[in-house]
Amino acid sequence: MSNLNTPRKFRIKAPCSTANIGPGFDVLGISLSLYLTLDVEILDGSQPNTKDFEMTYSGEGANDVPLIPEKNLITKTALYVLHANSIKSLPKPLKIHVHNPIPLGRGLGSSGAAVVAGVALGDALGQLNMGKDRMLDYCLMIERHPDNVAAALMGGFVASYLRELDAADLEITSIPVSETFDNVTNGTGPSPPQPPRGIGHFVRLGWAKEIKAIAIVPKFEVATAKARAVLPNNYERKDIVFNLQRLAVLTTALGRSPPDADLIYNAMQDKIHQPYRKTLIPGLPDVLTSITPQKYDGLLGICLSGAGPTILALATHNFDTIAEEAMAVFKKVGGFDCFYEVLDVVEDGTTCTYL
Amino acid sequence: MSNLNTPRKFRIKAPCSTANIGPGFDVLGISLSLYLTLDVEILDGSQPNTKDFEMTYSGEGANDVPLIPEKNLITKTALYVLHANSIKSLPKPLKIHVHNPIPLGRGLGSSGAAVVAGVALGDALGQLNMGKDRMLDYCLMIERHPDNVAAALMGGFVASYLRELDAADLEITSIPVSETFDNVTNGTGPSPPQPPRGIGHFVRLGWAKEIKAIAIVPKFEVATAKARAVLPNNYERKDIVFNLQRLAVLTTALGRSPPDADLIYNAMQDKIHQPYRKTLIPGLPDVLTSITPQKYDGLLGICLSGAGPTILALATHNFDTIAEEAMAVFKKVGGFDCFYEVLDVVEDGTTCTYL
Repeated sequence: MSNLNTPRKFRIKAPCSTANIGPGFDVLGISLSLYLTLDVEILDGSQPNTKDFEMTYSGEGANDVPLIPEKNLITKTALYVLHANSIKSLPKPLKIHVHNPIPLGRGLGSSGAAVVAGVALGDALGQLNMGKDRMLDYCLMIERHPDNVAAALMGGFVASYLRELDAADLEITSIPVSETFDNVTNGTGPSPPQPPRGIGHFVRLGWAKEIKAIAIVPKFEVATAKARAVLPNNYERKDIVFNLQRLAVLTTALGRSPPDADLIYNAMQDKIHQPYRKTLIPGLPDVLTSITPQKYDGLLGICLSGAGPTILALATHNFDTIAEEAMAVFKKVGGFDCFYEVLDVVEDGTTCTYL
Repeated sequence: MSNLNTPRKFRIKAPCSTANIGPGFDVLGISLSLYLTLDVEILDGSQPNTKDFEMTYSGEGANDVPLIPEKNLITKTALYVLHANSIKSLPKPLKIHVHNPIPLGRGLGSSGAAVVAGVALGDALGQLNMGKDRMLDYCLMIERHPDNVAAALMGGFVASYLRELDAADLEITSIPVSETFDNVTNGTGPSPPQPPRGIGHFVRLGWAKEIKAIAIVPKFEVATAKARAVLPNNYERKDIVFNLQRLAVLTTALGRSPPDADLIYNAMQDKIHQPYRKTLIPGLPDVLTSITPQKYDGLLGICLSGAGPTILALATHNFDTIAEEAMAVFKKVGGFDCFYEVLDVVEDGTTCTYL
């Protein structure tokens, strides 16, 4: 394994992502042009005064994110990938700088980007050359909601789900989900089994190039677990059919050029998650109903981004006007401030470039 | 209006259709190459011994279907269209021959085809030249589940839903749904209002040309109302997400060439309607689970067609083998006979051709 310590430099970029997109609860994801970036260097170990491991971090979460290999989500994930491939330790001396512009806990896939970047890091450090399909299996062992990770890894507008695993697979998969995979990342236990193949099904959906995403980001976090806890366990059939109907139209409508604002706006309505999350995000119903294509030329649709609190508006122009109106409504009704980003849809997903 | 009585001949063809396609309950429809055909002739009224109205019928339902204008679903629908456009009676002398090869009450959209053919008949008799978008509004006033009618009218693989009508629209739409529009078709009352515009949203989805549909048709009927009555009113969130995930993949997967059998087979699974309908169709679970792409090369997916009892199998080859196996399972487990048809997806939907 000595070749793994060969000095080299590379950069991994994993995009942020938005999920759900209205009716596509736990299904749809879009990768967007705000990148978690890892600058990685394996140094020359023969030089004096090199530390075996050095990790630095700038950007969102810089004051809170742990920077030791077994605790940081990115390196912990990389360690899991390496261990599953019988590589018991990180190459050394290893230097990683993380730059993260993705706001944490806002519904923009920050943890999905970390998991994807971690799998890509493990792949590159271990020189495994797995390919993205196999990398997705690893991602889905850690993050069981495929919407953000499939989008961040593959790029573009993606529909995805986990296949129903058979009994033998379930035995394997009961080990290293994110909450419990500490045992396999500290290098003490036996190598964890590799994931079953093809855990996730996904398809890339069409995306009209002229559509951009506006992320209106409130200055507070909503924990995903809390955003799930407010959802009911049971739904009426009419609400289900409402979402099924809009989802089927939306997956195709966003690929049509020029985009049909009336069709898309209506197809982005939801009755499964957004109505229940208004208690966590004061002003949410007001933002969702007051900003329409009739009032704002260029707007195509508006919804919660992931579990929120970020609002996602899709539009072809008038980005700043739309964002400013959403921020004004939140300020007036909810009493809080936001910032916004106008983002492109990322076609190529996560990349690893040797420098 | 005397020009409406100008002697002429035309043929209306409305295809049968399948709906739901697994996860797409009340959403997806596909038009298939089995046509309800109307041969229509407005005769020369100056000739002796011509009857004002003559209707004949061959094919499925020939012994049961009423053949008087206010009772037959096709002519009743045409009368509604004419009356809504201030035309109080049928042109005369009028001769209509209906040929219907679509089995009734089997989940192949026979009543959807009748409604669509009726609207097309009204359009042609009244020389209204409405265009298909406007014809869809009329269809949706009579048949509120758009999946079959949108497919039969527009052709191809279609996702559709009704928009949520506003209060003023609802007042209008409360009149002429199928159960209650007898008053407006007998020509006595005032003209019914025309439908609101754009009642239905729909998109044509991509369809890979090599995919054909096998309809395996049990020799008994299941009333749609009965098939709806067995469904629960409430569902667990996990079952909803199961369908949403598969639906989003399916809408795109069926347009990919060559088709991916594993992707499509998994994306055609359903937890919203099929599990509850097994009580009405003995052997249904056996047919759905025993015929897989692993066992039958060419098979892409298998599901209930509409509300059943017909089974829809999508495949690229091996059509007869797949159909015979499905029929054998029904015979063995359910104890009943079936027949089958191998059908193409119809691209152009309903047509009216002058002869």
